[in-house]
Amino acid sequence: MLYLVHMTVNLPADMPASEATALKEVEKKLSQDLQRDGRWAELWRVVGQYANYSIFNVAGNDELHEILSGLPLFPYMTIDVTALATHPSRI
Amino acid sequence: MLYLVHMTVNLPADMPASEATALKEVEKKLSQDLQRDGRWAELWRVVGQYANYSIFNVAGNDELHEILSGLPLFPYMTIDVTALATHPSRI
Amino acid sequence: MLYLVHMTVNLPADMPASEATALKEVEKKLSQDLQRDGRWAELWRVVGQYANYSIFNVAGNDELHEILSGLPLFPYMTIDVTALATHPSRI
Amino acid sequence: MLYLVHMTVNLPADMPASEATALKEVEKKLSQDLQRDGRWAELWRVVGQYANYSIFNVAGNDELHEILSGLPLFPYMTIDVTALATHPSRI
Amino acid sequence: MLYLVHMTVNLPADMPASEATALKEVEKKLSQDLQRDGRWAELWRVVGQYANYSIFNVAGNDELHEILSGLPLFPYMTIDVTALATHPSRI
Amino acid sequence: MLYLVHMTVNLPADMPASEATALKEVEKKLSQDLQRDGRWAELWRVVGQYANYSIFNVAGNDELHEILSGLPLFPYMTIDVTALATHPSRI
Amino acid sequence: MLYLVHMTVNLPADMPASEATALKEVEKKLSQDLQRDGRWAELWRVVGQYANYSIFNVAGNDELHEILSGLPLFPYMTIDVTALATHPSRI
Amino acid sequence: MLYLVHMTVNLPADMPASEATALKEVEKKLSQDLQRDGRWAELWRVVGQYANYSIFNVAGNDELHEILSGLPLFPYMTIDVTALATHPSRI
Amino acid sequence: MLYLVHMTVNLPADMPASEATALKEVEKKLSQDLQRDGRWAELWRVVGQYANYSIFNVAGNDELHEILSGLPLFPYMTIDVTALATHPSRI
Amino acid sequence: MLYLVHMTVNLPADMPASEATALKEVEKKLSQDLQRDGRWAELWRVVGQYANYSIFNVAGNDELHEILSGLPLFPYMTIDVTALATHPSRI
Repeated sequence: MLYLVHMTVNLPADMPASEATALKEVEKKLSQDLQRDGRWAELWRVVGQYANYSIFNVAGNDELHEILSGLPLFPYMTIDVTALATHPSRI
Repeated sequence: MLYLVHMTVNLPADMPASEATALKEVEKKLSQDLQRDGRWAELWRVVGQYANYSIFNVAGNDELHEILSGLPLFPYMTIDVTALATHPSRI
Repeated sequence: MLYLVHMTVNLPADMPASEATALKEVEKKLSQDLQRDGRWAELWRVVGQYANYSIFNVAGNDELHEILSGLPLFPYMTIDVTALATHPSRI
Repeated sequence: MLYLVHMTVNLPADMPASEATALKEVEKKLSQDLQRDGRWAELWRVVGQYANYSIFNVAGNDELHEILSGLPLFPYMTIDVTALATHPSRI
Repeated sequence: MLYLVHMTVNLPADMPASEATALKEVEKKLSQDLQRDGRWAELWRVVGQYANYSIFNVAGNDELHEILSGLPLFPYMTIDVTALATHPSRI
Repeated sequence: MLYLVHMTVNLPADMPASEATALKEVEKKLSQDLQRDGRWAELWRVVGQYANYSIFNVAGNDELHEILSGLPLFPYMTIDVTALATHPSRI
Repeated sequence: MLYLVHMTVNLPADMPASEATALKEVEKKLSQDLQRDGRWAELWRVVGQYANYSIFNVAGNDELHEILSGLPLFPYMTIDVTALATHPSRI
Repeated sequence: MLYLVHMTVNLPADMPASEATALKEVEKKLSQDLQRDGRWAELWRVVGQYANYSIFNVAGNDELHEILSGLPLFPYMTIDVTALATHPSRI
Repeated sequence: MLYLVHMTVNLPADMPASEATALKEVEKKLSQDLQRDGRWAELWRVVGQYANYSIFNVAGNDELHEILSGLPLFPYMTIDVTALATHPSRI
Repeated sequence: MLYLVHMTVNLPADMPASEATALKEVEKKLSQDLQRDGRWAELWRVVGQYANYSIFNVAGNDELHEILSGLPLFPYMTIDVTALATHPSRI
């Protein structure tokens, strides 16, 4: 099942650079694992923002929440989820 | 170059059904032609709405506007365009 | 899978009363069929508005869109869908 | 009487983890007590967010406020309340 | 139980003056009946707008919706309802 | 002259409890004095929020601002004021 | 007493030009009468919009509503009123 | 003096095509005259919308309003004006 | 040239009272100098808020920005500027 | 390819003045380098705000994001990007 997910990252201004770097590295690795197994199906940067649009392909709502809430940056992100359906004009 | 495009359709309540059907058929054919040549790269229905999220893969801003403004439903759609860039964590 | 759905109805001011009544009767019957088979799991009126909040229990995004877009009042409704997951404090 | 309640939690970034854990444990126990006695009638997680939608079944406005303002996380939540009425199509 | 209700009236520009006048007269009579029996407890005009803020004192959500949805101007109003509770500083 | 006033309180997360308590006590006493002399004519809690709706009955704009800006919690509140007029249907 | 008033005019697209002209002439005359007697104290056009910002100097809320609701364009305007008080830095 | 102007065009769905075409032709000619004399300094299409962003270089507020309100499409446009100043980093 | 300016002040909760007082005194003196020379033409307090609406009468956009950005409270204010033009009904 | 970019700067209230000054100097130099090579094609201050509107002329989405995310003030800015196309009335 497909979902469009919009994530905006807001790290606290006083977070030590080392902590931010560590968080981002774990986040990147986890993201790439999920991309490899096909669940994080697409990942694009929003131009000019510390934000992304992503497509997730998962079994359903529970799995999507489990993935998103398990991201290291989750406490620092604003996330919006849009449920997607098959479009009748899709070839 | 990639763009996320959100289209919401609002047909006038008093448009004759035959006119609406004809418009949608031309729109569908045009959409499928653009999907086949790769420029309308993705197309999803937003659950519960007469709306879609799409990914366009085009040469740039001018080509995207030419495509969108040439859609038969263009006068009846609210369209938002988000420019996308390569994400550093993309595999 | 569960979804919270918010529907607001806006019938055109010039729709003949007989047409509105007919639409609402078909809508009501369809809604009650879906309540009986368990897919339209909950249905509440928003106080002071021609609107409802509903819980749908369906197989996934595609089935939900098929149901919502098949409602007779669909062309006259503004619909928002929120994907729901299991809450860890739920007993 | 039924109410739809939307709660979004925003813990301060500098709250010690032990304090957050303690708050959440008390919140969870209180929530489960209220679920058991039927007043916190439904509880769902919003996918991708530290937020929930809940249904409360209480005697009225005063009891609902007493419950919500007594939650340990109340000072850290944004809460919206929608009064619900019986829907005429409800079976 | 108390509720703050905000009503904004939007009559269609092409409604015949006689129909508008008739609607408003029935609305006024019904409003005054409800004021006399204490359920429409307060009624104020918003300065500069065809809108009012009102306080309703009713048995609960269902009765409030029954009253509001029965107003002759209901199809032409945007209504927002805020549930009110006793304030601890109220004398 | 009547005004509807909406106040939402946002105390800083790091305000010492003793300071918050002291502020609220002075606020409560001042509010009750103003209720007794009739200027703070109505006071209701918004269900689920640290907020109130109030009716003020004062000589005019200047007196209302003097009262509101003199509240101990004023620096921590978001306040919206709506000027009210006599409603023609008021009995 | 002073109020800042923002008025935006939205004439229906199908209003006959003669009717619009007549309305505007009556509106203009009434506005100028109110300017002459000092109650419509200031009147500015918002650049690029069929809208104005105005200052009214009237006895209070009721008089302001009486004036605004009596304007010929009132049914076609969106009006927002801001109550103004004396500023302590005003010379 | 420079201004950023955002114009969105909303032609009524029932405007005859010939009338729309005639309006657009006059608008285009007027726009090009203003571009030639330097007052309509820049003109860009917003991708995916019947809208533009423009830079105007005029003597001041009055001249800008005179130009904008004189456009044939003015009654059908939503216009926002942002006053611009010299940026200290501008070379 | 005239501009309507809306300023809302948000001082940090942890700014020492002496610093706030000093800032406000310099701001007040500067404001009064500008009122005396006619450029800060009007100044009103918004009832219930630490905010003002002002009219500035200056040579143009650059002078207005120079004045506003030179105010001691500028770093702590949210400012909106509306360019004003002569109204055709102004006497 | 052209883009309209809106940047609003929000420096933390507790950033040392020397750090802010250093950041702004590097930002200014980088901005001027980009203006000289033509990619930061236009740069205007928004009157009354610590914000700018800019026109970027770059090869595409990726280059624009690389530039914007490389600005020293990027972590402290809210940035909105609007893709621009050639306007048919442009001379």
